[in-house]
Amino acid sequence: MGISMDWEAGLSIWKQIEKQLLADIASGVFAPGDKMPTEMELVRRFGVNRHTVRRAMSALVDANVVRVEQGRGAFVQEQILDYPLGAKTRFSQIVSGRHRLPDKRLISSEILKASAAIAQFLDVKPGTRVVELFSVSEADGVPLAVATSYLPVARFEGIVEIFTQTKSLTEAFKHFGIDDYSRKTTRISAQLPSSRVASLLKQAKNRPVISTESVDVDAAGVPIEYGITAFSSDRVQLIVE
Amino acid sequence: MGISMDWEAGLSIWKQIEKQLLADIASGVFAPGDKMPTEMELVRRFGVNRHTVRRAMSALVDANVVRVEQGRGAFVQEQILDYPLGAKTRFSQIVSGRHRLPDKRLISSEILKASAAIAQFLDVKPGTRVVELFSVSEADGVPLAVATSYLPVARFEGIVEIFTQTKSLTEAFKHFGIDDYSRKTTRISAQLPSSRVASLLKQAKNRPVISTESVDVDAAGVPIEYGITAFSSDRVQLIVE
Repeated sequence: MGISMDWEAGLSIWKQIEKQLLADIASGVFAPGDKMPTEMELVRRFGVNRHTVRRAMSALVDANVVRVEQGRGAFVQEQILDYPLGAKTRFSQIVSGRHRLPDKRLISSEILKASAAIAQFLDVKPGTRVVELFSVSEADGVPLAVATSYLPVARFEGIVEIFTQTKSLTEAFKHFGIDDYSRKTTRISAQLPSSRVASLLKQAKNRPVISTESVDVDAAGVPIEYGITAFSSDRVQLIVE
Repeated sequence: MGISMDWEAGLSIWKQIEKQLLADIASGVFAPGDKMPTEMELVRRFGVNRHTVRRAMSALVDANVVRVEQGRGAFVQEQILDYPLGAKTRFSQIVSGRHRLPDKRLISSEILKASAAIAQFLDVKPGTRVVELFSVSEADGVPLAVATSYLPVARFEGIVEIFTQTKSLTEAFKHFGIDDYSRKTTRISAQLPSSRVASLLKQAKNRPVISTESVDVDAAGVPIEYGITAFSSDRVQLIVE
Protein backbone atom coordinates (compact mmCIF):
# COMPACT_ATOMS: atom_id res chain seq x y z
CA MET A 1 0.00 0.00 0.00
CA GLY A 2 2.96 2.37 0.53
CA ILE A 3 3.09 5.32 -1.86
CA SER A 4 6.68 5.93 -2.86
CA MET A 5 8.07 9.20 -1.56
CA ASP A 6 11.12 10.79 -3.15
CA TRP A 7 12.93 11.24 0.14
CA GLU A 8 14.89 14.46 0.07
CA ALA A 9 18.52 14.21 1.10
CA GLY A 10 19.55 16.16 4.20
CA LEU A 11 16.04 16.66 5.57
CA SER A 12 14.85 14.29 8.28
CA ILE A 13 12.07 11.91 7.26
CA TRP A 14 9.54 13.25 9.74
CA LYS A 15 10.19 16.82 8.49
CA GLN A 16 9.48 15.66 4.92
CA ILE A 17 6.25 13.99 6.01
CA GLU A 18 5.26 17.17 7.84
CA LYS A 19 5.94 19.18 4.64
CA GLN A 20 3.88 16.75 2.56
CA LEU A 21 0.91 16.88 4.96
CA LEU A 22 1.14 20.70 5.04
CA ALA A 23 1.05 20.70 1.24
CA ASP A 24 -2.00 18.39 1.32
CA ILE A 25 -3.76 20.79 3.69
CA ALA A 26 -2.77 23.89 1.69
CA SER A 27 -4.05 22.34 -1.53
CA GLY A 28 -7.32 21.26 0.07
CA VAL A 29 -6.77 17.47 0.00
CA PHE A 30 -7.63 17.84 3.67
CA ALA A 31 -10.00 20.79 4.15
CA PRO A 32 -10.59 22.83 7.34
CA GLY A 33 -12.60 20.69 9.79
CA ASP A 34 -11.69 17.40 7.99
CA LYS A 35 -10.49 14.44 9.99
CA MET A 36 -6.84 13.66 9.24
CA PRO A 37 -5.83 10.07 8.41
CA THR A 38 -5.06 7.88 11.43
CA GLU A 39 -1.51 7.09 12.49
CA MET A 40 -1.82 3.60 10.98
CA GLU A 41 -3.05 5.04 7.67
CA LEU A 42 -0.08 7.42 7.57
CA VAL A 43 2.31 4.59 8.48
CA ARG A 44 1.00 2.65 5.47
CA ARG A 45 0.98 5.66 3.16
CA PHE A 46 4.54 6.77 3.86
CA GLY A 47 5.98 3.34 4.64
CA VAL A 48 7.65 4.60 7.82
CA ASN A 49 7.28 3.65 11.47
CA ARG A 50 4.68 4.95 13.91
CA HIS A 51 7.19 7.08 15.78
CA THR A 52 8.14 9.04 12.63
CA VAL A 53 4.51 9.71 11.73
CA ARG A 54 3.77 10.77 15.29
CA ARG A 55 6.61 13.29 15.25
CA ALA A 56 5.34 14.87 12.00
CA MET A 57 1.77 15.10 13.33
CA SER A 58 2.98 16.54 16.60
CA ALA A 59 4.79 19.31 14.68
CA LEU A 60 1.51 20.11 12.90
CA VAL A 61 -0.29 20.27 16.24
CA ASP A 62 2.38 22.62 17.65
CA ALA A 63 1.98 24.83 14.58
CA ASN A 64 -1.78 24.93 15.24
CA VAL A 65 -2.45 23.47 11.78
CA VAL A 66 -4.23 20.43 13.16
CA ARG A 67 -5.77 19.73 16.54
CA VAL A 68 -6.27 16.46 18.38
CA GLU A 69 -9.69 15.73 19.84
CA GLN A 70 -9.57 13.21 22.66
CA GLY A 71 -10.76 9.83 21.36
CA ARG A 72 -11.78 11.19 17.94
CA GLY A 73 -8.52 11.75 16.09
CA ALA A 74 -6.80 14.72 14.49
CA PHE A 75 -8.65 17.45 12.58
CA VAL A 76 -7.55 20.24 10.27
CA GLN A 77 -7.99 23.56 12.10
CA GLU A 78 -10.74 25.77 10.76
CA GLN A 79 -10.01 29.33 9.76
CA ILE A 80 -10.89 31.33 12.85
CA LEU A 81 -13.08 34.39 12.37
CA ASP A 82 -12.13 37.42 14.49
CA TYR A 83 -15.39 38.76 15.85
CA PRO A 84 -14.97 42.30 17.27
CA LEU A 85 -17.23 42.81 20.28
CA GLY A 86 -18.09 46.47 19.92
CA ALA A 87 -21.24 48.47 20.59
CA LYS A 88 -22.00 48.69 16.87
CA THR A 89 -20.55 45.47 15.43
CA ARG A 90 -22.94 43.52 13.21
CA PHE A 91 -22.56 39.88 12.27
CA SER A 92 -23.30 40.34 8.56
CA GLN A 93 -20.80 43.21 8.20
CA ILE A 94 -18.07 41.30 10.00
CA VAL A 95 -18.53 38.22 7.84
CA SER A 96 -18.85 40.04 4.51
CA GLY A 97 -15.87 42.21 5.48
CA ARG A 98 -13.88 38.94 5.47
CA HIS A 99 -15.19 38.16 1.96
CA ARG A 100 -17.38 35.40 3.28
CA LEU A 101 -21.11 35.07 2.69
CA PRO A 102 -23.18 35.72 5.84
CA ASP A 103 -26.49 34.00 6.48
CA LYS A 104 -28.81 33.82 9.47
CA ARG A 105 -31.42 31.06 9.44
CA LEU A 106 -34.43 30.99 11.73
CA ILE A 107 -34.76 27.54 13.31
CA SER A 108 -37.82 28.18 15.46
CA SER A 109 -39.81 30.96 17.03
CA GLU A 110 -42.25 31.14 19.89
CA ILE A 111 -44.33 33.66 21.83
CA LEU A 112 -43.63 33.42 25.57
CA LYS A 113 -44.38 35.26 28.77
CA ALA A 114 -41.17 36.92 29.97
CA SER A 115 -39.53 35.23 32.96
CA ALA A 116 -38.22 37.48 35.74
CA ALA A 117 -34.72 37.41 34.23
CA ILE A 118 -35.79 38.17 30.66
CA ALA A 119 -38.15 40.90 31.90
CA GLN A 120 -35.31 42.54 33.80
CA PHE A 121 -33.00 42.57 30.77
CA LEU A 122 -35.75 43.98 28.53
CA ASP A 123 -36.97 46.39 31.22
CA VAL A 124 -40.58 45.14 30.98
CA LYS A 125 -42.92 43.56 33.55
CA PRO A 126 -42.53 39.80 34.13
CA GLY A 127 -45.22 38.03 32.12
CA THR A 128 -45.04 40.57 29.25
CA ARG A 129 -45.34 38.79 25.91
CA VAL A 130 -41.97 38.34 24.18
CA VAL A 131 -41.04 36.61 20.95
CA GLU A 132 -38.18 34.12 21.13
CA LEU A 133 -36.16 33.70 17.92
CA PHE A 134 -33.80 30.74 17.71
CA SER A 135 -31.36 31.06 14.80
CA VAL A 136 -28.09 29.86 13.32
CA SER A 137 -25.52 32.30 11.90
CA GLU A 138 -23.37 31.03 9.07
CA ALA A 139 -20.42 32.13 6.92
CA ASP A 140 -20.16 30.43 3.52
CA GLY A 141 -22.62 27.81 4.79
CA VAL A 142 -20.49 26.93 7.84
CA PRO A 143 -22.34 27.48 11.13
CA LEU A 144 -20.51 29.91 13.45
CA ALA A 145 -23.06 30.64 16.15
CA VAL A 146 -26.47 29.72 17.51
CA ALA A 147 -28.49 32.55 19.04
CA THR A 148 -31.61 32.86 21.15
CA SER A 149 -33.12 36.36 21.03
CA TYR A 150 -35.98 37.75 23.08
CA LEU A 151 -37.89 40.83 21.88
CA PRO A 152 -41.04 42.49 23.24
CA VAL A 153 -44.02 41.49 21.03
CA ALA A 154 -45.82 44.82 21.53
CA ARG A 155 -43.06 46.68 19.69
CA PHE A 156 -42.16 44.01 17.14
CA GLU A 157 -45.47 42.54 15.98
CA GLY A 158 -44.79 40.41 12.86
CA ILE A 159 -41.01 40.31 13.26
CA VAL A 160 -40.84 36.53 12.71
CA GLU A 161 -41.97 36.89 9.08
CA ILE A 162 -39.77 39.94 8.49
CA PHE A 163 -36.70 38.26 10.01
CA THR A 164 -37.30 35.13 7.92
CA GLN A 165 -37.12 37.34 4.82
CA THR A 166 -34.33 39.72 5.81
CA LYS A 167 -32.21 37.02 7.52
CA SER A 168 -30.77 39.79 9.64
CA LEU A 169 -32.07 41.38 12.85
CA THR A 170 -30.45 44.68 11.84
CA GLU A 171 -32.54 44.72 8.65
CA ALA A 172 -35.64 43.57 10.51
CA PHE A 173 -35.25 46.41 13.03
CA LYS A 174 -35.33 48.93 10.16
CA HIS A 175 -38.89 47.80 9.38
CA PHE A 176 -39.77 49.00 12.87
CA GLY A 177 -38.10 52.39 12.40
CA ILE A 178 -34.91 51.45 14.25
CA ASP A 179 -31.99 52.55 12.08
CA ASP A 180 -29.50 52.60 14.89
CA TYR A 181 -28.95 50.46 17.94
CA SER A 182 -26.09 49.57 20.28
CA ARG A 183 -24.97 46.62 22.31
CA LYS A 184 -24.86 47.21 26.04
CA THR A 185 -22.88 45.08 28.50
CA THR A 186 -21.87 41.66 27.19
CA ARG A 187 -21.15 38.80 29.59
CA ILE A 188 -18.80 36.16 28.25
CA SER A 189 -18.45 32.60 29.43
CA ALA A 190 -17.41 29.16 28.16
CA GLN A 191 -19.60 26.05 28.14
CA LEU A 192 -19.97 22.65 26.60
CA PRO A 193 -22.82 22.79 24.08
CA SER A 194 -26.12 20.96 24.52
CA SER A 195 -26.73 18.16 22.00
CA ARG A 196 -29.04 20.44 20.05
CA VAL A 197 -26.57 23.32 19.86
CA ALA A 198 -23.68 20.97 18.98
CA SER A 199 -25.75 19.45 16.21
CA LEU A 200 -26.76 22.87 14.79
CA LEU A 201 -23.10 24.01 14.95
CA LYS A 202 -22.06 20.69 13.36
CA GLN A 203 -19.41 20.24 16.02
CA ALA A 204 -18.50 17.62 18.61
CA LYS A 205 -20.25 17.81 21.98
CA ASN A 206 -16.91 17.85 23.79
CA ARG A 207 -15.67 21.01 22.03
CA PRO A 208 -16.64 24.07 24.08
CA VAL A 209 -18.57 27.10 22.89
CA ILE A 210 -17.98 30.74 23.82
CA SER A 211 -21.29 31.96 25.19
CA THR A 212 -22.33 35.58 25.38
CA GLU A 213 -25.31 37.30 26.93
CA SER A 214 -26.13 40.84 25.88
CA VAL A 215 -28.80 43.50 25.53
CA ASP A 216 -29.29 45.72 22.49
CA VAL A 217 -30.76 49.17 23.06
CA ASP A 218 -32.24 51.68 20.61
CA ALA A 219 -30.91 55.24 20.16
CA ALA A 220 -32.95 56.34 23.21
CA GLY A 221 -31.40 53.60 25.34
CA VAL A 222 -34.57 51.46 25.46
CA PRO A 223 -33.83 47.69 25.39
CA ILE A 224 -35.00 46.08 22.15
CA GLU A 225 -33.39 42.64 22.35
CA TYR A 226 -31.92 40.32 24.93
CA GLY A 227 -29.75 37.67 23.30
CA ILE A 228 -27.81 34.57 24.31
CA THR A 229 -25.30 33.37 21.71
CA ALA A 230 -23.12 30.26 21.53
CA PHE A 231 -20.10 30.68 19.22
CA SER A 232 -18.17 27.67 17.95
CA SER A 233 -14.77 28.09 19.64
CA ASP A 234 -13.07 26.32 16.71
CA ARG A 235 -14.34 28.90 14.21
CA VAL A 236 -14.73 32.18 16.05
CA GLN A 237 -12.77 34.19 18.57
CA LEU A 238 -14.10 37.35 20.16
CA ILE A 239 -11.97 40.48 19.98
CA VAL A 240 -12.15 43.28 22.51
CA GLU A 241 -10.25 46.46 21.64
CA MET B 1 -31.03 6.26 58.34
CA GLY B 2 -33.95 8.63 57.49
CA ILE B 3 -33.83 11.97 59.31
CA SER B 4 -37.33 12.99 60.33
CA MET B 5 -38.65 16.07 58.52
CA ASP B 6 -41.54 18.09 59.89
CA TRP B 7 -43.46 18.11 56.63
CA GLU B 8 -45.22 21.42 56.19
CA ALA B 9 -48.92 21.27 55.34
CA GLY B 10 -49.97 22.70 51.98
CA LEU B 11 -46.50 22.67 50.42
CA SER B 12 -45.60 19.76 48.17
CA ILE B 13 -42.94 17.38 49.50
CA TRP B 14 -40.44 18.09 46.72
CA LYS B 15 -40.80 21.85 47.34
CA GLN B 16 -40.00 21.29 51.02
CA ILE B 17 -36.94 19.23 50.12
CA GLU B 18 -35.85 21.97 47.73
CA LYS B 19 -36.25 24.52 50.55
CA GLN B 20 -34.25 22.36 52.96
CA LEU B 21 -31.40 21.88 50.45
CA LEU B 22 -31.39 25.62 49.71
CA ALA B 23 -31.11 26.29 53.45
CA ASP B 24 -28.24 23.78 53.67
CA ILE B 25 -26.43 25.59 50.86
CA ALA B 26 -27.13 29.06 52.29
CA SER B 27 -25.80 28.00 55.71
CA GLY B 28 -22.68 26.45 54.21
CA VAL B 29 -23.48 22.78 54.96
CA PHE B 30 -22.77 22.42 51.24
CA ALA B 31 -20.27 25.08 50.18
CA PRO B 32 -19.71 26.48 46.64
CA GLY B 33 -17.95 23.83 44.55
CA ASP B 34 -18.97 20.97 46.92
CA LYS B 35 -20.43 17.79 45.53
CA MET B 36 -24.08 17.42 46.52
CA PRO B 37 -25.26 14.10 48.03
CA THR B 38 -26.31 11.47 45.49
CA GLU B 39 -29.95 10.77 44.71
CA MET B 40 -29.77 7.59 46.81
CA GLU B 41 -28.31 9.48 49.77
CA LEU B 42 -31.11 12.06 49.54
CA VAL B 43 -33.71 9.27 49.24
CA ARG B 44 -32.39 7.81 52.49
CA ARG B 45 -32.07 11.17 54.23
CA PHE B 46 -35.58 12.39 53.46
CA GLY B 47 -37.31 9.01 53.37
CA VAL B 48 -39.02 9.78 50.06
CA ASN B 49 -38.84 8.19 46.63
CA ARG B 50 -36.30 8.87 43.92
CA HIS B 51 -38.77 10.81 41.80
CA THR B 52 -39.45 13.34 44.55
CA VAL B 53 -35.75 13.91 45.20
CA ARG B 54 -35.10 14.28 41.49
CA ARG B 55 -37.78 16.94 41.18
CA ALA B 56 -36.26 18.96 44.04
CA MET B 57 -32.76 18.71 42.56
CA SER B 58 -34.02 19.65 39.13
CA ALA B 59 -35.57 22.82 40.60
CA LEU B 60 -32.17 23.70 42.09
CA VAL B 61 -30.54 23.15 38.70
CA ASP B 62 -33.12 25.39 37.00
CA ALA B 63 -32.44 28.06 39.61
CA ASN B 64 -28.73 27.79 38.82
CA VAL B 65 -27.98 26.91 42.45
CA VAL B 66 -26.46 23.56 41.57
CA ARG B 67 -25.13 22.18 38.32
CA VAL B 68 -24.92 18.61 37.06
CA GLU B 69 -21.60 17.41 35.63
CA GLN B 70 -22.00 14.45 33.29
CA GLY B 71 -20.97 11.28 35.13
CA ARG B 72 -19.71 13.13 38.23
CA GLY B 73 -22.84 14.22 40.07
CA ALA B 74 -24.31 17.53 41.17
CA PHE B 75 -22.20 20.42 42.51
CA VAL B 76 -23.05 23.64 44.33
CA GLN B 77 -22.50 26.54 41.93
CA GLU B 78 -19.59 28.78 42.76
CA GLN B 79 -20.15 32.48 43.11
CA ILE B 80 -19.27 33.86 39.69
CA LEU B 81 -16.90 36.82 39.65
CA ASP B 82 -17.71 39.50 37.05
CA TYR B 83 -14.37 40.39 35.47
CA PRO B 84 -14.59 43.66 33.49
CA LEU B 85 -12.34 43.52 30.45
CA GLY B 86 -11.24 47.13 30.20
CA ALA B 87 -7.97 48.80 29.22
CA LYS B 88 -7.16 49.57 32.86
CA THR B 89 -8.80 46.74 34.80
CA ARG B 90 -6.51 45.03 37.32
CA PHE B 91 -7.13 41.63 38.85
CA SER B 92 -6.31 42.65 42.43
CA GLN B 93 -8.61 45.70 42.29
CA ILE B 94 -11.48 43.69 40.84
CA VAL B 95 -11.20 40.99 43.49
CA SER B 96 -10.73 43.31 46.46
CA GLY B 97 -13.58 45.46 45.14
CA ARG B 98 -15.78 42.38 45.70
CA HIS B 99 -14.48 42.11 49.29
CA ARG B 100 -12.47 39.02 48.45
CA LEU B 101 -8.76 38.58 49.09
CA PRO B 102 -6.69 38.57 45.88
CA ASP B 103 -3.51 36.55 45.56
CA LYS B 104 -1.22 35.72 42.65
CA ARG B 105 1.19 32.85 43.15
CA LEU B 106 4.17 32.21 40.89
CA ILE B 107 4.26 28.52 39.93
CA SER B 108 7.33 28.60 37.70
CA SER B 109 9.50 30.94 35.68
CA GLU B 110 11.92 30.48 32.83
CA ILE B 111 14.13 32.50 30.50
CA LEU B 112 13.35 31.68 26.85
CA LYS B 113 14.19 32.91 23.39
CA ALA B 114 11.08 34.55 21.93
CA SER B 115 9.29 32.49 19.27
CA ALA B 116 8.11 34.32 16.15
CA ALA B 117 4.62 34.74 17.65
CA ILE B 118 5.79 36.01 21.03
CA ALA B 119 8.30 38.33 19.35
CA GLN B 120 5.55 39.83 17.22
CA PHE B 121 3.28 40.51 20.19
CA LEU B 122 6.15 42.09 22.17
CA ASP B 123 7.48 43.92 19.11
CA VAL B 124 11.01 42.50 19.54
CA LYS B 125 13.20 40.36 17.27
CA PRO B 126 12.58 36.60 17.34
CA GLY B 127 15.18 35.02 19.62
CA THR B 128 15.19 38.00 22.01
CA ARG B 129 15.40 36.80 25.63
CA VAL B 130 12.04 36.86 27.39
CA VAL B 131 11.03 35.77 30.86
CA GLU B 132 8.02 33.46 31.12
CA LEU B 133 6.00 33.72 34.34
CA PHE B 134 3.47 30.99 35.03
CA SER B 135 1.09 31.96 37.85
CA VAL B 136 -2.24 31.24 39.50
CA SER B 137 -4.62 34.04 40.49
CA GLU B 138 -6.84 33.39 43.48
CA ALA B 139 -9.67 35.03 45.41
CA ASP B 140 -10.02 33.94 49.05
CA GLY B 141 -7.74 31.00 48.23
CA VAL B 142 -9.96 29.75 45.38
CA PRO B 143 -8.10 29.64 42.04
CA LEU B 144 -9.80 31.75 39.36
CA ALA B 145 -7.24 31.86 36.56
CA VAL B 146 -3.92 30.50 35.38
CA ALA B 147 -1.73 32.89 33.41
CA THR B 148 1.39 32.65 31.29
CA SER B 149 3.11 36.01 30.82
CA TYR B 150 6.05 36.86 28.58
CA LEU B 151 8.15 39.97 29.24
CA PRO B 152 11.39 41.18 27.63
CA VAL B 153 14.31 40.36 29.97
CA ALA B 154 16.32 43.43 28.92
CA ARG B 155 13.72 45.75 30.43
CA PHE B 156 12.66 43.60 33.38
CA GLU B 157 15.88 42.12 34.76
CA GLY B 158 15.10 40.61 38.19
CA ILE B 159 11.30 40.69 37.81
CA VAL B 160 10.91 37.08 39.00
CA GLU B 161 12.10 37.96 42.52
CA ILE B 162 10.10 41.20 42.57
CA PHE B 163 6.92 39.51 41.36
CA THR B 164 7.33 36.73 43.95
CA GLN B 165 7.33 39.44 46.64
CA THR B 166 4.68 41.80 45.25
CA LYS B 167 2.39 38.99 44.05
CA SER B 168 1.11 41.46 41.46
CA LEU B 169 2.45 42.40 38.04
CA THR B 170 1.06 45.91 38.48
CA GLU B 171 3.18 46.35 41.62
CA ALA B 172 6.21 44.71 39.98
CA PHE B 173 5.97 47.11 37.02
CA LYS B 174 6.23 50.07 39.45
CA HIS B 175 9.72 48.84 40.39
CA PHE B 176 10.65 49.40 36.76
CA GLY B 177 9.19 52.91 36.67
CA ILE B 178 5.93 51.89 34.99
CA ASP B 179 3.11 53.50 36.94
CA ASP B 180 0.60 53.25 34.17
CA TYR B 181 -0.11 50.67 31.51
CA SER B 182 -3.05 49.60 29.36
CA ARG B 183 -4.36 46.44 27.84
CA LYS B 184 -4.48 46.41 24.07
CA THR B 185 -6.62 44.02 21.99
CA THR B 186 -7.83 40.94 23.85
CA ARG B 187 -8.72 37.77 21.96
CA ILE B 188 -11.23 35.53 23.71
CA SER B 189 -11.82 31.85 23.14
CA ALA B 190 -13.05 28.74 24.96
CA GLN B 191 -11.07 25.55 25.53
CA LEU B 192 -10.91 22.43 27.60
CA PRO B 193 -8.03 22.82 30.08
CA SER B 194 -4.87 20.72 29.95
CA SER B 195 -4.41 18.35 32.90
CA ARG B 196 -1.95 20.78 34.45
CA VAL B 197 -4.23 23.80 34.14
CA ALA B 198 -7.26 21.81 35.40
CA SER B 199 -5.26 20.67 38.39
CA LEU B 200 -4.02 24.20 39.21
CA LEU B 201 -7.59 25.52 38.86
CA LYS B 202 -8.83 22.60 41.00
CA GLN B 203 -11.52 21.88 38.43
CA ALA B 204 -12.64 18.93 36.32
CA LYS B 205 -10.92 18.45 32.97
CA ASN B 206 -14.27 18.39 31.17
CA ARG B 207 -15.28 21.88 32.38
CA PRO B 208 -14.12 24.47 29.83
CA VAL B 209 -12.00 27.53 30.53
CA ILE B 210 -12.37 30.99 28.98
CA SER B 211 -9.00 31.75 27.44
CA THR B 212 -7.74 35.22 26.65
CA GLU B 213 -4.67 36.46 24.84
CA SER B 214 -3.63 40.08 25.29
CA VAL B 215 -0.80 42.57 25.18
CA ASP B 216 -0.13 45.24 27.82
CA VAL B 217 1.56 48.44 26.69
CA ASP B 218 3.21 51.23 28.68
CA ALA B 219 2.12 54.89 28.52
CA ALA B 220 4.19 55.33 25.33
CA GLY B 221 2.45 52.36 23.68
CA VAL B 222 5.47 50.04 23.95
CA PRO B 223 4.49 46.40 24.63
CA ILE B 224 5.61 45.28 28.09
CA GLU B 225 3.77 41.97 28.48
CA TYR B 226 2.12 39.34 26.31
CA GLY B 227 -0.19 37.14 28.36
CA ILE B 228 -2.34 34.05 27.89
CA THR B 229 -4.88 33.47 30.64
CA ALA B 230 -7.25 30.58 31.34
CA PHE B 231 -10.20 31.56 33.54
CA SER B 232 -12.31 28.93 35.29
CA SER B 233 -15.69 29.29 33.55
CA ASP B 234 -17.47 28.15 36.72
CA ARG B 235 -16.02 31.01 38.77
CA VAL B 236 -15.44 33.92 36.38
CA GLN B 237 -17.31 35.61 33.57
CA LEU B 238 -15.79 38.36 31.47
CA ILE B 239 -17.73 41.60 31.12
CA VAL B 240 -17.40 43.94 28.14
CA GLU B 241 -19.09 47.33 28.45
